[in-house]
Amino acid sequence: MSLPDQPSVLTPTQARALFRTGATTSTTSGWCRGHVQANLLAVPRDLAFDAMLFAHRNPAACPLLEVTDPGDPRPRELAPSADLRTDLPAYRIYEHGTLVAEVGDATAYWRDDLVAFLIGCSFSFEAALAAAGVPVRHLEQGRNVSMYVTDRPCVPAGRLSGPLVVSMRPVPEPLVDTAIEVSSRFAQHHGPPVHVGDPAALGIADLGRPDFGDPVRAEPGDVPVFWACGVTPQAVCMASKPEFAITHAPGRMFITDHAD
Amino acid sequence: MSLPDQPSVLTPTQARALFRTGATTSTTSGWCRGHVQANLLAVPRDLAFDAMLFAHRNPAACPLLEVTDPGDPRPRELAPSADLRTDLPAYRIYEHGTLVAEVGDATAYWRDDLVAFLIGCSFSFEAALAAAGVPVRHLEQGRNVSMYVTDRPCVPAGRLSGPLVVSMRPVPEPLVDTAIEVSSRFAQHHGPPVHVGDPAALGIADLGRPDFGDPVRAEPGDVPVFWACGVTPQAVCMASKPEFAITHAPGRMFITDHAD
Repeated sequence: MSLPDQPSVLTPTQARALFRTGATTSTTSGWCRGHVQANLLAVPRDLAFDAMLFAHRNPAACPLLEVTDPGDPRPRELAPSADLRTDLPAYRIYEHGTLVAEVGDATAYWRDDLVAFLIGCSFSFEAALAAAGVPVRHLEQGRNVSMYVTDRPCVPAGRLSGPLVVSMRPVPEPLVDTAIEVSSRFAQHHGPPVHVGDPAALGIADLGRPDFGDPVRAEPGDVPVFWACGVTPQAVCMASKPEFAITHAPGRMFITDHAD
Repeated sequence: MSLPDQPSVLTPTQARALFRTGATTSTTSGWCRGHVQANLLAVPRDLAFDAMLFAHRNPAACPLLEVTDPGDPRPRELAPSADLRTDLPAYRIYEHGTLVAEVGDATAYWRDDLVAFLIGCSFSFEAALAAAGVPVRHLEQGRNVSMYVTDRPCVPAGRLSGPLVVSMRPVPEPLVDTAIEVSSRFAQHHGPPVHVGDPAALGIADLGRPDFGDPVRAEPGDVPVFWACGVTPQAVCMASKPEFAITHAPGRMFITDHAD
């Protein structure tokens, strides 16, 4: 199935229906403009308290939008008609910390004891950045955002610990304050940047080699700006090796019915 | 041990040390001015995910300030030197939904699997109300705030369900908007009122007979203003009958080191 020419004008229901048919995309950045996007982490009920405690203790990386009842694949708050097993463009399956599959449909992996955590996503503030005159380089370049594992540890919770993951957007230096101000208004979607400027301050050796997503070209005068990222739970899965987890594929988010 | 003449000027450390010696008070309203106060709910680890999900789904009643590790009586964020087993003026012990004891020291009831939830408290915005010129009637009258079980159901989570509890403050009619505006700035402490005016709209039959706390006299021209209350988990315990829970005694809060 071919992708729409203008995914920005699709409704969330249309986009989710498309993904449910098996269509995919390399990123949902720019899709369904004006609607909140969310990261997914689904873990067994046995790990759900630790996961929720981890999110509470790391609110910049893991702002919780909704938590489902065990086994229930429907996000009753954010998109009552959606099915979290099928309505994302791609999923990653982790077993004991190892990525064992990337699939377009997670139904075969779903379990009756899974609790889904929907976590705010910085894609939700990109339309507001653009409206404020801040160019969004990865959108201009038709790429996924760049994401990096940092050397900053998250606050542990129970059996879960691991490093902070950040997304990076190159921003023209005179517009950095605007980017900070605009994203600060999106507390449920990571809020203000965690760092501006030197990648080495976060332990990032090479901006050209992101751990997730695509490399994004900076224009002359751009400064790298780093936001806490909802891919953090995936780095935590790799570090903490829980028995089982399903996540979204980085940059390929769950699109909700909520306005941003 | 006698109580201080001016509890408002005590430091949180001093107030907690006093309660640790066995001293108590009918309410911590007005104590340690400028510091955040918190409701307590401690439940076994087995119920902790349900409790945390309940809090997330009912953020007005249960704004989560901190959640401890299982068995750990120390609130490492809000007051690292404190001990949640001894540092509140009074505790209530619930077994299968029944209040079985009210004690000044919960050490004998503490269990290695208890997870403590510290929940924002409307006492935290009373100093700001007073500073904005809004009289706080229960403080003027030397009483505990009035609290009522309403007919509004909370959003259930797992094994936990029950009614919303509210606190009520009589506010002079011309100052109601100020009270709304001031409390709205305290999102972590219940935020704006859930109702202004008619008690019957919340299923409250008689303001003179609160379910918790003391009756508070309204002055001529006062309007009753109702805020979601952190005693809600106690009403939920009574309704849902979990095996075991420790809570603060209504109005007798945990005083934290954090500024309000």
